[in-house]
Amino acid sequence: MKLNQFVIIGLGRFGSNLGRELVRLGYEVLGVDRDEEKVQELSNVLTHTIVADATEEEVLRSVGARNFDCGVVAIGDDIQASILATILLKELGVKKVVAKAVSDLHGRVLERMGVDRIIYPERDMGVRVAHQLVSPNLLDYIELSKKYTIAELAVPQCWSGKSLEDVDLRGKFGCSIVAINKPQGMIIAPAAKDVLSTEDVMVVIGTNDQIEQCQESFDSGE
Amino acid sequence: MKLNQFVIIGLGRFGSNLGRELVRLGYEVLGVDRDEEKVQELSNVLTHTIVADATEEEVLRSVGARNFDCGVVAIGDDIQASILATILLKELGVKKVVAKAVSDLHGRVLERMGVDRIIYPERDMGVRVAHQLVSPNLLDYIELSKKYTIAELAVPQCWSGKSLEDVDLRGKFGCSIVAINKPQGMIIAPAAKDVLSTEDVMVVIGTNDQIEQCQESFDSGE
Amino acid sequence: MKLNQFVIIGLGRFGSNLGRELVRLGYEVLGVDRDEEKVQELSNVLTHTIVADATEEEVLRSVGARNFDCGVVAIGDDIQASILATILLKELGVKKVVAKAVSDLHGRVLERMGVDRIIYPERDMGVRVAHQLVSPNLLDYIELSKKYTIAELAVPQCWSGKSLEDVDLRGKFGCSIVAINKPQGMIIAPAAKDVLSTEDVMVVIGTNDQIEQCQESFDSGE
Amino acid sequence: MKLNQFVIIGLGRFGSNLGRELVRLGYEVLGVDRDEEKVQELSNVLTHTIVADATEEEVLRSVGARNFDCGVVAIGDDIQASILATILLKELGVKKVVAKAVSDLHGRVLERMGVDRIIYPERDMGVRVAHQLVSPNLLDYIELSKKYTIAELAVPQCWSGKSLEDVDLRGKFGCSIVAINKPQGMIIAPAAKDVLSTEDVMVVIGTNDQIEQCQESFDSGE
Amino acid sequence: MKLNQFVIIGLGRFGSNLGRELVRLGYEVLGVDRDEEKVQELSNVLTHTIVADATEEEVLRSVGARNFDCGVVAIGDDIQASILATILLKELGVKKVVAKAVSDLHGRVLERMGVDRIIYPERDMGVRVAHQLVSPNLLDYIELSKKYTIAELAVPQCWSGKSLEDVDLRGKFGCSIVAINKPQGMIIAPAAKDVLSTEDVMVVIGTNDQIEQCQESFDSGE
Amino acid sequence: MKLNQFVIIGLGRFGSNLGRELVRLGYEVLGVDRDEEKVQELSNVLTHTIVADATEEEVLRSVGARNFDCGVVAIGDDIQASILATILLKELGVKKVVAKAVSDLHGRVLERMGVDRIIYPERDMGVRVAHQLVSPNLLDYIELSKKYTIAELAVPQCWSGKSLEDVDLRGKFGCSIVAINKPQGMIIAPAAKDVLSTEDVMVVIGTNDQIEQCQESFDSGE
Amino acid sequence: MKLNQFVIIGLGRFGSNLGRELVRLGYEVLGVDRDEEKVQELSNVLTHTIVADATEEEVLRSVGARNFDCGVVAIGDDIQASILATILLKELGVKKVVAKAVSDLHGRVLERMGVDRIIYPERDMGVRVAHQLVSPNLLDYIELSKKYTIAELAVPQCWSGKSLEDVDLRGKFGCSIVAINKPQGMIIAPAAKDVLSTEDVMVVIGTNDQIEQCQESFDSGE
Amino acid sequence: MKLNQFVIIGLGRFGSNLGRELVRLGYEVLGVDRDEEKVQELSNVLTHTIVADATEEEVLRSVGARNFDCGVVAIGDDIQASILATILLKELGVKKVVAKAVSDLHGRVLERMGVDRIIYPERDMGVRVAHQLVSPNLLDYIELSKKYTIAELAVPQCWSGKSLEDVDLRGKFGCSIVAINKPQGMIIAPAAKDVLSTEDVMVVIGTNDQIEQCQESFDSGE
Repeated sequence: MKLNQFVIIGLGRFGSNLGRELVRLGYEVLGVDRDEEKVQELSNVLTHTIVADATEEEVLRSVGARNFDCGVVAIGDDIQASILATILLKELGVKKVVAKAVSDLHGRVLERMGVDRIIYPERDMGVRVAHQLVSPNLLDYIELSKKYTIAELAVPQCWSGKSLEDVDLRGKFGCSIVAINKPQGMIIAPAAKDVLSTEDVMVVIGTNDQIEQCQESFDSGE
Repeated sequence: MKLNQFVIIGLGRFGSNLGRELVRLGYEVLGVDRDEEKVQELSNVLTHTIVADATEEEVLRSVGARNFDCGVVAIGDDIQASILATILLKELGVKKVVAKAVSDLHGRVLERMGVDRIIYPERDMGVRVAHQLVSPNLLDYIELSKKYTIAELAVPQCWSGKSLEDVDLRGKFGCSIVAINKPQGMIIAPAAKDVLSTEDVMVVIGTNDQIEQCQESFDSGE
Repeated sequence: MKLNQFVIIGLGRFGSNLGRELVRLGYEVLGVDRDEEKVQELSNVLTHTIVADATEEEVLRSVGARNFDCGVVAIGDDIQASILATILLKELGVKKVVAKAVSDLHGRVLERMGVDRIIYPERDMGVRVAHQLVSPNLLDYIELSKKYTIAELAVPQCWSGKSLEDVDLRGKFGCSIVAINKPQGMIIAPAAKDVLSTEDVMVVIGTNDQIEQCQESFDSGE
Repeated sequence: MKLNQFVIIGLGRFGSNLGRELVRLGYEVLGVDRDEEKVQELSNVLTHTIVADATEEEVLRSVGARNFDCGVVAIGDDIQASILATILLKELGVKKVVAKAVSDLHGRVLERMGVDRIIYPERDMGVRVAHQLVSPNLLDYIELSKKYTIAELAVPQCWSGKSLEDVDLRGKFGCSIVAINKPQGMIIAPAAKDVLSTEDVMVVIGTNDQIEQCQESFDSGE
Repeated sequence: MKLNQFVIIGLGRFGSNLGRELVRLGYEVLGVDRDEEKVQELSNVLTHTIVADATEEEVLRSVGARNFDCGVVAIGDDIQASILATILLKELGVKKVVAKAVSDLHGRVLERMGVDRIIYPERDMGVRVAHQLVSPNLLDYIELSKKYTIAELAVPQCWSGKSLEDVDLRGKFGCSIVAINKPQGMIIAPAAKDVLSTEDVMVVIGTNDQIEQCQESFDSGE
Repeated sequence: MKLNQFVIIGLGRFGSNLGRELVRLGYEVLGVDRDEEKVQELSNVLTHTIVADATEEEVLRSVGARNFDCGVVAIGDDIQASILATILLKELGVKKVVAKAVSDLHGRVLERMGVDRIIYPERDMGVRVAHQLVSPNLLDYIELSKKYTIAELAVPQCWSGKSLEDVDLRGKFGCSIVAINKPQGMIIAPAAKDVLSTEDVMVVIGTNDQIEQCQESFDSGE
Repeated sequence: MKLNQFVIIGLGRFGSNLGRELVRLGYEVLGVDRDEEKVQELSNVLTHTIVADATEEEVLRSVGARNFDCGVVAIGDDIQASILATILLKELGVKKVVAKAVSDLHGRVLERMGVDRIIYPERDMGVRVAHQLVSPNLLDYIELSKKYTIAELAVPQCWSGKSLEDVDLRGKFGCSIVAINKPQGMIIAPAAKDVLSTEDVMVVIGTNDQIEQCQESFDSGE
Repeated sequence: MKLNQFVIIGLGRFGSNLGRELVRLGYEVLGVDRDEEKVQELSNVLTHTIVADATEEEVLRSVGARNFDCGVVAIGDDIQASILATILLKELGVKKVVAKAVSDLHGRVLERMGVDRIIYPERDMGVRVAHQLVSPNLLDYIELSKKYTIAELAVPQCWSGKSLEDVDLRGKFGCSIVAINKPQGMIIAPAAKDVLSTEDVMVVIGTNDQIEQCQESFDSGE
């Protein structure tokens, strides 16, 4: 099933950025917000926008919300409005309903409502930024499982000019370099003779412990 | 340089989650907020907390803000407070100052202040969620460069029971599978004979176009 | 199963009257409200009272809400607080959870939460008073089914001094008098010779149409 | 005297439900409220609606309030407005004036104003719900006098399959079954051989004590 | 019946000045107001003062309001509080209840409450000041009946040095001078030879028309 | 100088009643208030009304305030507006400026502004009502000087049927009866044989002490 | 008369800076403000500070305001408070009363109050800054009379290296240089041979026209 | 560079007076404020005025802010708006940006923004008025350097009738009189025989100490 049409309820910072990106990716987006100013700001960005109170059944019915593939309730702080808009989208038969939660308890209510996916933007960003702050070389990462992570790491000063053979990542820490992003281009599955420079970024896969030890060696190496 | 001690100004949803994760990772965190209730809630979580107005020089001086390795200004909507707290941290000589921006203009002011890193949590999450919504198989991803992406993809129904040789990802789309996360464990650098199942998750590296085409083949295959 | 201990969340006009009556009937009642003044007013009436925010998990846990047989969420206008308190009572394992709804939509959310019984006090009273206003002789009634009603009717002027035989309720309208409440005492299953007076009240059972026609004959008889 | 035309002052939850039901019963209703939104919501439901301040003599005069048979002051929390609207309806010569009171003291003022009937919706519903909560078999009831009650009781598990003769309600508790509501239809004045089932509902008349003992036997029988 | 003890509810400008004067005349006064600041200001002026909400029965009971000879409800703009305090004083059995009304409608409600005397300070002062403004010589007056007035008039320039005989008030206008207030003392029932000066004030009795014509002659005489 | 045209600034309870009476007495009145509702209410009563801020010079100039004989600043609680409107009227050259003061300090400022007359309606009414409350027979009075008063007194029960000779007011208390208002008409300068009745009202002149003693004899006579 | 002790009413930006400077110059200053926070901030700067409402006579009396040589009413926006505090200082007999006005009308009221000096800080600064903005070389100036000004002018590029004789200020424009402020020291009454540099500042006296023409020659010279 | 066109953001007391003076000096001024009333007031004074929010990029762009020679951010209390408007003017390329600061910290932020000149109107006026208050003869002054001041001094009583020779300012205190402003005209570089009068004003240059001692001699001379 491919989703093509999105209705976003709530055009705050998260909702409006979500909408912008969906439009940029080529999808159709209807934006709904009670606040005229916010709607005005996005009227030239989103496919359609309306000023409306999405907690009123009539409103959602009249904009044809049921015909959208996916409804995103991105309402920020008003938990009541978030819940009421969510139940209305579910009852109207929207195929997929995604909702933003601002607290654990809010999330649990949404779960009981039968929401397909619950998003915690501030919590997720908090965690992600924490990891980046404590490891200055860590640019980004994906937690593949409880145990494994794939990380994008800046090459430290102390490795500059060394080949993969020299630094022997697998031998020392057990993790593997799956790609090297060099100014002159991406090397996928790099060879042992490939030489690193501080301008390069490595993509490394391994267990959390392996990657952590690897990063710690950078710090001590400085 | 390793950062060990953090002071977080503003304990809203982003700031408090950032603080929680930093403490979980073993770092020392001082949380500061004007709102007594928010501080109370985190008093057992963070290393230290105080109720204080971080836009007053005396306050930041008296909590010894200058001795922290990194100051994070995570104030939400009050742009004025964000700017004033930021300049105070800079003037006190905090090594690294990171600040959250709520709009482009806010970000540009922070840049002029000489902030080391500016974070746009809602914008970044909006973009990330947009990508996940439009590609149901896309669990997470890192943009390595303007051109290359590494993506975590759920194995589609149509590939279930097929070997890597059968699906021939590199042949058809040009991208490579660097790991397969199976319920029974992670296979790094999988072999051509390895068989996929719908419970597996693939880690794929390639250009944006390659990965997009690969995902589109999933949708049409359903 | 007999319910003995009640916790009432929200001590507005409905909640406080509910609590008063439960105590009068000999049950134990804990009253919870955020508003100190309301709690103060009932502190000598209910078994226990506390000033607390029932949308905080800790609060409900600390008052031992899980040990109560029945939780009544009687919060008036704050739909969000009503929903959050409801889910907390459910999750704590309270045997029976009853909640007041202020609108249809609110009721539907509560239903999805798995609430055991939903009460609409203002709607029910509105309907009941409407029936009484349009039929001045109708003192009270129970709708036994879609078709049958049992009604408490004041004896009209035109029937005063007549025996049941004379007025022949069953012959004329098809409904039966099951009791006559006279100043001197209740006559259950009255005899055909019993005489009516304007001070008496009849308890009549029949279909809605029969009772309506009977009442209309009163109006025209005046 | 039959009342045909109603003016309702205050279209909150009680007033609007009262109006809806009166219209459903075939009566003409004029709804008046200061709040445009509330009036808008009922404009297609009630016979007539106007946005107006019913504490201004001119307003009530211009809508011809004096020509209505019955005026209902259903104003919620604003005691002053309730009193002023009430005196104006009385002075205009409306035949019957009914008013909602939110407290005892409010009720006593209305009484001095000479109001024909005072309604306490929340208090009455509180009492009614209390009785139903403590006796799970009690579906509804009418207090016929200080001593007698007629109650609608669900048949308990322990009586299922027994005849009226077997359970001998009159013999054991002194109260009488005046009707049995069975899924297949209502039996008025049932016979001794009629058999009960848990799907049935009994209509029982008796003293409060008799009915209470009867209900208690249900609880212990479980 | 002589009134000795007064309780004044509401210590605004009218209530506080009333209280001050009663104390100055030697009476005992209890002042009650919800506003701590107002009570504080009068605490050294009135016999007793308390900060309390006079619309709560308990409050009035506990200050022994029933033992006062006269209760004055001087509450300014809060009509609801005025009415509730009034009914409580009446129900407590205060011998004489006087209340200030701010509008006609308010006055009519108070009348129905059975208030002994209703005062309209602003209306009465408005009327009194109007009369004084239009007749610069009119210092004060009492309307004895619809027809007769007694007026305190400054002697006009044109009469200075003339005797009562000369000005012949009775002959020209029909009204009588009952006293002349001279700097050197009051002359009651003055003689025809008594001479007027512009420093004198005359007390004149007559019909409204007579006195008006008299005043008009002053204006034209200037 | 006769005043014919009045401008009243501030149409609260005092100002509006003043205006009504001036119009009733045949004078031309322009009413000015910032509050549209208040102006609306008086638009059919006063000669002219406008909604305007009388603390703006342009406004007063454009309504031709300088052409009025008398300006009354009747603004209630907003001392600042009262002072600014007053200085503007003075500077525009209005012949006579009268202003209402709400406190002593306010009055002293107005005095320094050179206001022609300062009125304290609530204070004056408080004093007047105090006198009437403590002497139930005292209907109204004028203080002629520090020493003398003219009072309108209801005839007490104990004097009913007695002639002036019998009661001998002058002999016992030193004060004189200047008129008797009887239901059948006013008797000015009554004769010794004239008989009093409880329906009559006496107009008495005397020193304060004389009149007070006279009244006290009424109380003891009951 | 030398003023030694100052009381400043109102510790906003103007009042607090005035107070700071007076203390720096060695004078005794009492600061009074209703706002606790503002008082707190200056408690270590001014000689004495109190939190108090300076529009209450008692307050000013109790702080001994009458003993101060000079009272400055520096209250910002609250015109009413400014006027009331001013009259109280005058009545208490403070020798010199200075007050800040925020508008022309406010100033005119203060003048009628008999204030010794009225200050318009924002107006004066607006005018001063305007002059500096339009003449970039003009550093500061004093208007000696309607016609003459003494100005502090930066030496323009085009005059650098020239002697006073060369530039011949008096000959060309008619104005005189009374001093030259050079990095190495001040030259008072400079000689014709003294050479100017762009780092110097000239003090020039002349008519407004002369100085303006002189400045214009700078602009055209660049 | 000569500045000809000014845009002023914020039309409070400082901004509006600045604008008035610039227009009076013959320059073109565009005034911008969010507050319609303030803009209205200046619409006939400034060259152009618009009601707009100057913290929105679009707004400043559409009014052509970049074409102005000088932008003055005169926003009063809203520090955030001040900073955002400032960065926008800088980014638009306005040649010279001047901003008002309300506190030290605010000023430091503006400095980091690269503002050309920062103005503290209230602080500067506070300092200036302080000097004038403590020296009643000091009419105005310019601080030429840390050490030197030029002062405008009223001639004290004790010097009246004396020649410059007699008072020997240079001999006694070291400072020089550069001009004497007499009612009959200005004397620049006065001669030793010129005689002073109390109506004259002297312009004196000298070190701060010299001028202070000179003034103190005035005080002691009285």
